[in-house]
Amino acid sequence: MKESFFAFFEPDSVVVIGASATPGKSGNIVIRNILANDYKGKVFLVNPKGGEILGIPVHPSIASLPEGIDLAMIVLPAKDTPQALRECAEKGIKHAVLQAGGFAEVDEYGTEIQQELTTIIREKGIRALGPNTSGHTSTPHQFSSSLFPQGKIRRGKISYIAQTGNFATHTMKYILTAEHFGVSRVIGLGNKIDIEESEALEYLGNDPETNAIIMYLESIKRPRHFFEIAREVTRRKPVVLLKGGETEAGKHAAVAHTAAMAAEDRLMDGLIRQAGIVRIREYSHLILAGKALSMLPLPKGNRVSFSAPSGAMLVVLSDLCTRLGLEVPELKKETVQRLQEISPPFIRMRNPVDIWPAATVHGAEFAYREGMEAVLQDPHIDAVVPILMLTKETGVPPFDFVVTLAKKFPDKPILVSFSAEKQCMDECKGFLEPLGVPTFQEIEQPFEALSILYRCRRAMNRPRS
Amino acid sequence: MKESFFAFFEPDSVVVIGASATPGKSGNIVIRNILANDYKGKVFLVNPKGGEILGIPVHPSIASLPEGIDLAMIVLPAKDTPQALRECAEKGIKHAVLQAGGFAEVDEYGTEIQQELTTIIREKGIRALGPNTSGHTSTPHQFSSSLFPQGKIRRGKISYIAQTGNFATHTMKYILTAEHFGVSRVIGLGNKIDIEESEALEYLGNDPETNAIIMYLESIKRPRHFFEIAREVTRRKPVVLLKGGETEAGKHAAVAHTAAMAAEDRLMDGLIRQAGIVRIREYSHLILAGKALSMLPLPKGNRVSFSAPSGAMLVVLSDLCTRLGLEVPELKKETVQRLQEISPPFIRMRNPVDIWPAATVHGAEFAYREGMEAVLQDPHIDAVVPILMLTKETGVPPFDFVVTLAKKFPDKPILVSFSAEKQCMDECKGFLEPLGVPTFQEIEQPFEALSILYRCRRAMNRPRS
Repeated sequence: MKESFFAFFEPDSVVVIGASATPGKSGNIVIRNILANDYKGKVFLVNPKGGEILGIPVHPSIASLPEGIDLAMIVLPAKDTPQALRECAEKGIKHAVLQAGGFAEVDEYGTEIQQELTTIIREKGIRALGPNTSGHTSTPHQFSSSLFPQGKIRRGKISYIAQTGNFATHTMKYILTAEHFGVSRVIGLGNKIDIEESEALEYLGNDPETNAIIMYLESIKRPRHFFEIAREVTRRKPVVLLKGGETEAGKHAAVAHTAAMAAEDRLMDGLIRQAGIVRIREYSHLILAGKALSMLPLPKGNRVSFSAPSGAMLVVLSDLCTRLGLEVPELKKETVQRLQEISPPFIRMRNPVDIWPAATVHGAEFAYREGMEAVLQDPHIDAVVPILMLTKETGVPPFDFVVTLAKKFPDKPILVSFSAEKQCMDECKGFLEPLGVPTFQEIEQPFEALSILYRCRRAMNRPRS
Repeated sequence: MKESFFAFFEPDSVVVIGASATPGKSGNIVIRNILANDYKGKVFLVNPKGGEILGIPVHPSIASLPEGIDLAMIVLPAKDTPQALRECAEKGIKHAVLQAGGFAEVDEYGTEIQQELTTIIREKGIRALGPNTSGHTSTPHQFSSSLFPQGKIRRGKISYIAQTGNFATHTMKYILTAEHFGVSRVIGLGNKIDIEESEALEYLGNDPETNAIIMYLESIKRPRHFFEIAREVTRRKPVVLLKGGETEAGKHAAVAHTAAMAAEDRLMDGLIRQAGIVRIREYSHLILAGKALSMLPLPKGNRVSFSAPSGAMLVVLSDLCTRLGLEVPELKKETVQRLQEISPPFIRMRNPVDIWPAATVHGAEFAYREGMEAVLQDPHIDAVVPILMLTKETGVPPFDFVVTLAKKFPDKPILVSFSAEKQCMDECKGFLEPLGVPTFQEIEQPFEALSILYRCRRAMNRPRS
């Protein structure tokens, strides 16, 4: 299997079948993405019109291609895809990304064509991704088959397996334009006539370029096999899953079977947990988990210290920690002493840390820096969340100290959040994130991210049954 | 009582006791905020040094003030506050904002001074806000006593009652710099030696400048009285509450009484619900609720239609709707027909609306506009959420049509969210929100907001028991 995935994720040569000279067409965007990602292998193009597209000569037919191309991207209408796949097989191309839509997901005719594709790949021994996939990505190999305009995709160490094209298209665009983390492999499964989640998970489980795996699935083709593989992989790497269609409405069902659905979901929930997979419930947490797993170590435990410029925030975030399974423990005596030293005498310092009195005396930089260092040194604490209050008028500290502390305490996740002025938050994010410290605009988000990280740690350390 | 609150929220004259010439000091910031908000009444300042601050003459003592000032803001250290309050009483000033900290919230000495304040206000018949409050705001009267640099505070029709200074300080700063909605009255309760939540709620319940009330409370001083008032107010106006300290950790308790806490919280939950108050659990939802209640009508019911550029989003958001108590019903036959007309024939259109196939044929503007209008006209639908896919390459539609539809269907909330490119989202927000259409960066947020609005509607329409 590794051999097959090698052709998908480290191809030496690729061909775009259905290459287009028209900007905005999928057959053109695919080529632009390949060029934008600085793919180092050979790129072939096929279009009956021949000529040249974006400086690359175009072959008039699949038959006219050289032998031994690793991977074909078939960007043709559904009805033309089977014939192209057959011709690829005749040329010895053993791996294909089937990028058209219009198969079983739409109608009976599409179902028939999809069945034809299934027959071809079985007969010819082709490995295929899709159909109805918007592509896949492999940043270590500087390659993407995405048919959505992406530009250069940022490299990272987390990988996505998605039963949706979103992580090759608009959600990836969001990650690239709103966040600073990158990805390693992205697999858009599409209609899964061949490659499915089990095989993808096994490949990524063994992939040295993948440190953590995040999945969006609506169905699991071979559940027993899938959970067997997951049980192994989750001991080595965090695996996070959003299961779509958990409710009746989510399943687009016409009649209500809410009770049955709930029972089915409870069963699924048990299987997921036993396999060491960390289940999430929100789409936006696919991004949150990716960010946290990209930028942070897993905490050793669930004991958090946070500092905030407001008593109310200390209260509501303590409530939130309890709901999320995070502990806000008492600090060591020495830590409390240090916090007391930097604070006005009338404040009795404890965890969580009421930091603003110290800031009014010593300035925000000193208060947050010394306060954070004190709790980072405390063996009772596994992770630290500073809520920075930022306004131009009250002064924005230089943020180097946060980066220095993150380097000094590499085993303890530091997650930054904010209060007050939006523009200052954006600036702080722009400074800290490229240096490896994640920030979160809403004060709940660092705790949600930390809860995911902690659950990943607990899953990896779970006893063997 | 109305008479007293009149002095706080519509004062004809105010005095800052502890006025400071030093920028950055509370006694200076308070004056700058008064000026920045274009307060039309008379402003007096008191500081033993006399002279002039920011162009306003300074009285050397409270005794040297004229008679009949409506409201005093006492911005002095805790220990000097009782004497100042006594002198105010002698000058006939009957209303005071006690803006120092350092009272019962810190130590025994502070508790003693607070007790002294309580005695003075009782003896002299003074009404007081605080102590330990960072101020209050009344935008219809262009006035704020905030001691945090705010500049001009945007006027709106929602009001906050907060047992924290955050809504006079950094959280208000966030609302002003990150959002486009405004506020009417903001009441920072502080240590509540006199004015507390019941009275504040009753005032805002009768206040024609307040359409909805959002509260953050950690304790309720007279619970029976409070819920009695709430039962009345919630029939006329939405009332939303975040109760801080719902868990043991949130209560900063040293020993664990989790079970007792949970029971106590269940009891509180029942009282809150019976009073028609909509309870929220997240701090950031205090802002989300404010935004939704400011910018949207209450939906007639819980039936939502949403459109998204991704099948996976349709699935996970349907799941989310179920969890939030929102229904995603079947559409009328005519609506389905209209959606089918604008879509490629192979897609079977339904609710939720898979909008991207129509966009690829007719362009995003046409598809979203026609799709939204179709579902807005449908009597089965109470609210509409379009998830706009925005990228420079695939084209950003002009957004006027969303504003036009919001005006055409004033009874149905329209909540916009996004996918794809962050910069385009920010531009869309910057265009739509000043025109009255709220946008939400994360795709879950419009549904969370809608769920709050729906619960407010249901509370207002609840049967009298």
